[in-house]
Amino acid sequence: MKIGILGAGQLGRMLALAGLPLGFEFIFLDPAADACAAALGDHLRADYADPAALARFCAHAKLVTYEFENVPVSIAERIAGGLPLYPGIPALRTSQDRLAEKQMFTQLGIDVPLYHRVDSRAELSAAAAHTGLPAVLKTRRMGYDGKGQIVLHDEHALDQAWTQLGGHPLILEAFVPFKRELSCLAVRSRDDSVRFYPVVENQHLDGILRVSRPRLDDPLQAKAQDYSTRVLKRLDYVGVLAVEFFDLGDRLLANEIAPRVHNSGHWSIEGAVCSQFENHLRAISGLPLGETRSREPSAMINCIGRMPTLSQIAALPHTHLHDYGKPAKPLRKLGHVTVLAEDDETLEARIKTIQALTPTEPARKQD
Amino acid sequence: MKIGILGAGQLGRMLALAGLPLGFEFIFLDPAADACAAALGDHLRADYADPAALARFCAHAKLVTYEFENVPVSIAERIAGGLPLYPGIPALRTSQDRLAEKQMFTQLGIDVPLYHRVDSRAELSAAAAHTGLPAVLKTRRMGYDGKGQIVLHDEHALDQAWTQLGGHPLILEAFVPFKRELSCLAVRSRDDSVRFYPVVENQHLDGILRVSRPRLDDPLQAKAQDYSTRVLKRLDYVGVLAVEFFDLGDRLLANEIAPRVHNSGHWSIEGAVCSQFENHLRAISGLPLGETRSREPSAMINCIGRMPTLSQIAALPHTHLHDYGKPAKPLRKLGHVTVLAEDDETLEARIKTIQALTPTEPARKQD
Repeated sequence: MKIGILGAGQLGRMLALAGLPLGFEFIFLDPAADACAAALGDHLRADYADPAALARFCAHAKLVTYEFENVPVSIAERIAGGLPLYPGIPALRTSQDRLAEKQMFTQLGIDVPLYHRVDSRAELSAAAAHTGLPAVLKTRRMGYDGKGQIVLHDEHALDQAWTQLGGHPLILEAFVPFKRELSCLAVRSRDDSVRFYPVVENQHLDGILRVSRPRLDDPLQAKAQDYSTRVLKRLDYVGVLAVEFFDLGDRLLANEIAPRVHNSGHWSIEGAVCSQFENHLRAISGLPLGETRSREPSAMINCIGRMPTLSQIAALPHTHLHDYGKPAKPLRKLGHVTVLAEDDETLEARIKTIQALTPTEPARKQD
Repeated sequence: MKIGILGAGQLGRMLALAGLPLGFEFIFLDPAADACAAALGDHLRADYADPAALARFCAHAKLVTYEFENVPVSIAERIAGGLPLYPGIPALRTSQDRLAEKQMFTQLGIDVPLYHRVDSRAELSAAAAHTGLPAVLKTRRMGYDGKGQIVLHDEHALDQAWTQLGGHPLILEAFVPFKRELSCLAVRSRDDSVRFYPVVENQHLDGILRVSRPRLDDPLQAKAQDYSTRVLKRLDYVGVLAVEFFDLGDRLLANEIAPRVHNSGHWSIEGAVCSQFENHLRAISGLPLGETRSREPSAMINCIGRMPTLSQIAALPHTHLHDYGKPAKPLRKLGHVTVLAEDDETLEARIKTIQALTPTEPARKQD
């Protein structure tokens, strides 16, 4: 069966690497000339809105999924008119709008940071009064890796922030003094089976994920699963879903969803019985889901802006490099390293070693 | 770095699946139109002896390896004149001739079954007197999966066997009442580091491998490693080497070598820290070798002639299907299933379940 994927970046690439052994073939639609998944299937190099390319894409694919949540809903709807599209339109639509996400969470009884919509300068002041300061002003759409966000520390920052972001639909969110950022990766099949990976603790720097650690037996596992289940049901979701949370110690607040395989689930390739990539493909193709349990303690370190030296990483115990085959660019996710260990102490030592070999800032020319 | 692989079958495919995450690219030379590795790199569809194709192949590859040991030595020599070729010519030459293999084993002090070269009908009788009967008459070259072999049970069989195989260079080998067939997978790097996977117990049917079980702490591990080390040194070997043995209880006899990744090492994709495929690539590209230890008990079941139903296999615990994407044909290796378990008893039960879902005889049309 040939699966169509909108987008041919690293997530598409890792989906294909997981799917080829299952007998799946892939066709990618992506305007980028250097799309790194292209080597693993047919690549239609065209804009997502190109009607001829879209027709060819749909003619070859038996079902369609996507690797990024900013697929225009109109295009997704056109595809879904003729082919199974997973995750479906409600998930796509909701994940594209931070306000819609927050409203959904609230309707589902899931706590979120205080927030307020902002469509005018006056509304920004009202919002700040509602959330208090500091707060984070965010574009409702098209933000990723910390882009389109400004932290407002005091009243004086409002004018400049409005100058920078005003004109876009915005949302102001209370700045949350979280203890941890967690993500919950869930997978739901077409027949409503649901499985969860262990919750993942995520360390960001400048808005970009650096290190993910799956936490076995985390005290918040049950709550994160409960919240994620509500979202899965509400969206009649099929595939892998990532829900990001803030752990405040006494409360778990939902931040956002990603309707796709997620950077914080990359550890599952070596660390889980069935990876998030294989499970996404199983879910959307109607296969039984695979086991999500951890095989042993693991962690993932992102390679940002430059790749580490392969021979140095290869020399480390139980360490696995994933080079996405992308041209280097400052702040670009070029690859990741997964490391495993028999116990947490050894794991932490190994993470340190890998981080020392994986410099990310300032972005430099690749060796 | 682009690696050239002679042959684009399932071994080339699994090498590419292991190598893409390391940042390697691949170019394959293979005359087959439906070569199943072709989707994972550039595919030059031409005869191995085609000078133009060979020139193009060598122009694009930085180093060359092969997935089958019947690469003509003259072609390997032409490649090795301009590029690193691993494993080298001595390994290729020796593995292509059962007589040369036996002579090498004997020179290295490694026990082998009684054998005798056979180039004439008279020599066949002399050979039978030397080895005793039953014995196995084999072509010295180009045999695989039990092809080119006849078991001689008594004197009467000699004439007919000679009629069938006479004219080829032959070898007669004593029929060995072995308790087990074992293989030892070793990997040697360019700087003489050597690592060994746990020895694997192999179950054949009609000359074709059906089930492989890595045996942790096998009493013959040390002896198999010692013998394999002698072969690695003698051949100045680089890459993964498989040495096949007969375990007679009181003696370990060497049978043959395969200078490549091997069917009996497929379990290592999920079962070992670093798979035989990744380790072969690490070895030939000059990287440090990866860990060969088993992560947990595992076994591999071949899919011969037809594939099992994906949804049935996907429903089983810790079970991983590898579909090579090859057209079905009787007795053809189309894929394999790896299964893991926390203990041997559970593993054996799972193997039985998988075998029941993976019928191989008689070869039928694929569902």
